[in-house]
Amino acid sequence: MIYLGLDPGLGTTGWGVIRAEGNRLAHIANGRIATDAKQDLGARLVALDAAIAALIADHHPQAAAVEEVFVNKNPQSTLKLGQARGVVLLGAARAGLLVGEYAPARVKQAVVGTGGADKAQVHAMVSRLLPGVMIAGPDAADALAVAICHAHCLGTHSRSSARP
Amino acid sequence: MIYLGLDPGLGTTGWGVIRAEGNRLAHIANGRIATDAKQDLGARLVALDAAIAALIADHHPQAAAVEEVFVNKNPQSTLKLGQARGVVLLGAARAGLLVGEYAPARVKQAVVGTGGADKAQVHAMVSRLLPGVMIAGPDAADALAVAICHAHCLGTHSRSSARP
Repeated sequence: MIYLGLDPGLGTTGWGVIRAEGNRLAHIANGRIATDAKQDLGARLVALDAAIAALIADHHPQAAAVEEVFVNKNPQSTLKLGQARGVVLLGAARAGLLVGEYAPARVKQAVVGTGGADKAQVHAMVSRLLPGVMIAGPDAADALAVAICHAHCLGTHSRSSARP
Repeated sequence: MIYLGLDPGLGTTGWGVIRAEGNRLAHIANGRIATDAKQDLGARLVALDAAIAALIADHHPQAAAVEEVFVNKNPQSTLKLGQARGVVLLGAARAGLLVGEYAPARVKQAVVGTGGADKAQVHAMVSRLLPGVMIAGPDAADALAVAICHAHCLGTHSRSSARP
């Protein structure tokens, strides 16, 4: 099964695509979608929406995930983040993907094995779990981490629900 | 020219459609789009997106406007609002509408004549400017107000830019 992880932002959205079969993980692709800050908000959201649709058309994921957001202190940044996040989640849900949202501690737990891991540990472990991966940036690493978490969660769930 | 005003929210989005020819305004329709709080976020955003697309298909507006948001104190509410606002702005921009964002004081100025007007004055004036209108609720009244503001702004701009 193919999983798309996303780390949404109005300026830059990180993304990562992995394949998971049982416990075996493989990297497919990762990258960053940047929008042009000189364009107006509507045009930036249209560009982001088109890029998400293209990603889904290229890689055919069956599931997508984002981190839950514990919003920062700047309300205008939160609003911008929300606008980008709405467009990204819409794109995934509209394409019929199984959309998951995970608390940061749950992503760390799934990737590193402890909810208290720091960013550097998460990124190092993403590289170890996906041999040969070249990561496009910190937001792409976060996107790969949430994809791994989603694969872990849905995989475990499917296996346990298959039991009598 | 036909203008769509929007007051986005994840729970309820108010909308209003007016026609403006020079200084003459006419009400076309207004209402509220509600999403089902029992559904997950992705499904709610898909429902909102489909409703905005249907509105645009039904009424063929050439322009759309929202109020700028001066975000409230609750960051989680701001994030939800942002997600809905992103989807609504995407829908308008994707359809090629002229999208405007107006500060609340500018909307009050355009509708009532003073930036310091209160909500009740704005709603009363919306009813007076659009004779015969039946307003679906406060969010629909806000949506009609921002549509009137957008018509006023684009109309004035077109007339002044048409001068030698």
